[in-house]
Amino acid sequence: MSDNRIYNFNAGPATLPLPVLEEIQESFLNYKSSGMSITEISHRSSWFDEVINDAVARTRRLLGLSDHYQVLFIQGGASMQFAMVPMNFLGDGDTADYVNTGTWSTKAIKEAKLLGKSHNVVASSEDRNFAYIPKNISFSKDAVYAHITSNNTIKGTQWADFPDTGDVPIISDMSSDFMCRPLEMKKFGMIYAGAQKNIGPAGVCMVIVREDLLARCPDILPSMLNYKTFADKNSMYNTPPCFSIYCIQLVLKWLEETIGGLGAMETINREKAALLYDFMDNTDFYNATADKDSRSLMNVTFRLPSEELEKQCIKEATENGMGGLKGHRSVGGCRASIYNAMPVDGVKALVAFMKAFEKKNG
Amino acid sequence: MSDNRIYNFNAGPATLPLPVLEEIQESFLNYKSSGMSITEISHRSSWFDEVINDAVARTRRLLGLSDHYQVLFIQGGASMQFAMVPMNFLGDGDTADYVNTGTWSTKAIKEAKLLGKSHNVVASSEDRNFAYIPKNISFSKDAVYAHITSNNTIKGTQWADFPDTGDVPIISDMSSDFMCRPLEMKKFGMIYAGAQKNIGPAGVCMVIVREDLLARCPDILPSMLNYKTFADKNSMYNTPPCFSIYCIQLVLKWLEETIGGLGAMETINREKAALLYDFMDNTDFYNATADKDSRSLMNVTFRLPSEELEKQCIKEATENGMGGLKGHRSVGGCRASIYNAMPVDGVKALVAFMKAFEKKNG
Repeated sequence: MSDNRIYNFNAGPATLPLPVLEEIQESFLNYKSSGMSITEISHRSSWFDEVINDAVARTRRLLGLSDHYQVLFIQGGASMQFAMVPMNFLGDGDTADYVNTGTWSTKAIKEAKLLGKSHNVVASSEDRNFAYIPKNISFSKDAVYAHITSNNTIKGTQWADFPDTGDVPIISDMSSDFMCRPLEMKKFGMIYAGAQKNIGPAGVCMVIVREDLLARCPDILPSMLNYKTFADKNSMYNTPPCFSIYCIQLVLKWLEETIGGLGAMETINREKAALLYDFMDNTDFYNATADKDSRSLMNVTFRLPSEELEKQCIKEATENGMGGLKGHRSVGGCRASIYNAMPVDGVKALVAFMKAFEKKNG
Repeated sequence: MSDNRIYNFNAGPATLPLPVLEEIQESFLNYKSSGMSITEISHRSSWFDEVINDAVARTRRLLGLSDHYQVLFIQGGASMQFAMVPMNFLGDGDTADYVNTGTWSTKAIKEAKLLGKSHNVVASSEDRNFAYIPKNISFSKDAVYAHITSNNTIKGTQWADFPDTGDVPIISDMSSDFMCRPLEMKKFGMIYAGAQKNIGPAGVCMVIVREDLLARCPDILPSMLNYKTFADKNSMYNTPPCFSIYCIQLVLKWLEETIGGLGAMETINREKAALLYDFMDNTDFYNATADKDSRSLMNVTFRLPSEELEKQCIKEATENGMGGLKGHRSVGGCRASIYNAMPVDGVKALVAFMKAFEKKNG
């Protein structure tokens, strides 16, 4: 890696494409001959209009969005969405389905509960510490939405396919696998994603929402908690998080122009994940924690024979230029987050290191 | 200016100290030998702990905060605070006072109203298009707080002194004059400031709140809308807007170490404002719009004899490397925002340009 950069396997904030970082650095004191840094430019300027409009247009093209969807940028991360979703879409007498597949689903359910909104937890994988994605779920026919978490960063699981919910729109938290593969958008009423895993730095959450759900937003909500405020003003009712949106624009440009879109991205992501899982499936030293059919393409969670060895492995990996391999503090173990921006070479280097570590300690 | 940078008089996002921008640029691909960009570093790392803790410590020193205050970083800008303040502090039977001094005060009042919270508008300067700060206001004795806007970015007015509200704590939106001068903190129960004017880039709002108000936050609020969530977790209940906080840290370091603190900053700010106001007071060509005793040190709003001349003046200033002089779209005219980071030389250059423009067109 150039400039003594490491392979960064952190779960988020996470690695970003090097060409994106280089472009930001290059123009940081003088953005497009404006004489200003991108951080100093008015959000009411033509420079920033171009940034946000290009980010929206690229999102539309990458996901193949119809005109029925709006692309919004909202602050507060996915955690704010956990509250905004029920606040906006669940009126008196309405109810929603939730599937509990881990820490973040649990938090989404907690916020619906705090708000006193009617909701059903229609499936959960808590019985086996969230090591799998539930199957054959009976979704309610009369729910306003069915909420899922498409990828579970902490538990290392991911929905391989999305469930059939009939006429009920799926709302998915896609923070940790947004833009990792093409989506069949017609299943989704809304998707949202904190940027800091797969599309940019922390400080903004992308929200893609369909007009039938937008029509439900009640006028009595505070302005900044109403999706309509953002939809009506191209996410600029007040000053948006300009720098984060700018970074997203560049990451989306890289996805489209350098990688070649979401199909090509999925191929690369499957190659990276296979390198790690296939290696681990052929040794008893490393054990992937998620069920095979529920494994995440983004967050590969695994254990070693002892906590001591895990600690040693993480330490030696760090010394060898591979950072962020510690599992989430709530579960322990190891985790390699291999988001879009992690190059295949980074995963190859990790597998080579793991092989050598096993040889020494196995 | 180096690198063809302009003097940036935008109202926000706004000019930042050049040494801060240079430091960000320099380390952008590899922050403190971490091998990662600051945008890629985990918020649960020692690197980021140091950033946020240093930002808090510097805020404490600069404002001379006692232990009774907490320093928080919250997303959504001041507009989100307009809702969070009444949500957190006004329970059943409680009421609050609001002073209306312009566009942003009006919006703060609107959000209290949307939430159905009891509030009194105890003074307003709407009768003369908000050209002044009201005096001799009768504040309620039983209000939970008295809300003011210390500086009115759009109208170019600023509270020269803060009112006596007895035992009622003042809550002030200080987005456009935060850290421009020392504060007598004991008057304030809370101050908040969107960063993008005087302390950093867009994407984070600083909130300084006293423990007696924090004790009022109800447990039934959504987690991300409860100040206690942020106070209990050092603003890291979920991923914070790391890059914006990092920029704030560097701006506060510049304020402390290069400028020498808020007293020194105020002296410089008064010098800059005097250069502009004194010049305009001695000509009929330029007319400052705010009453003399209510003039802002931060946003100098003024008119020329005609809209045509204003347009021409802004255009020629831009050609001469001075940007962002257009007044807010809601009021027209001209506005020079001369925040902390605007050097005295920038204001001198502007006055010289204005003199020449008058000579040619006056």
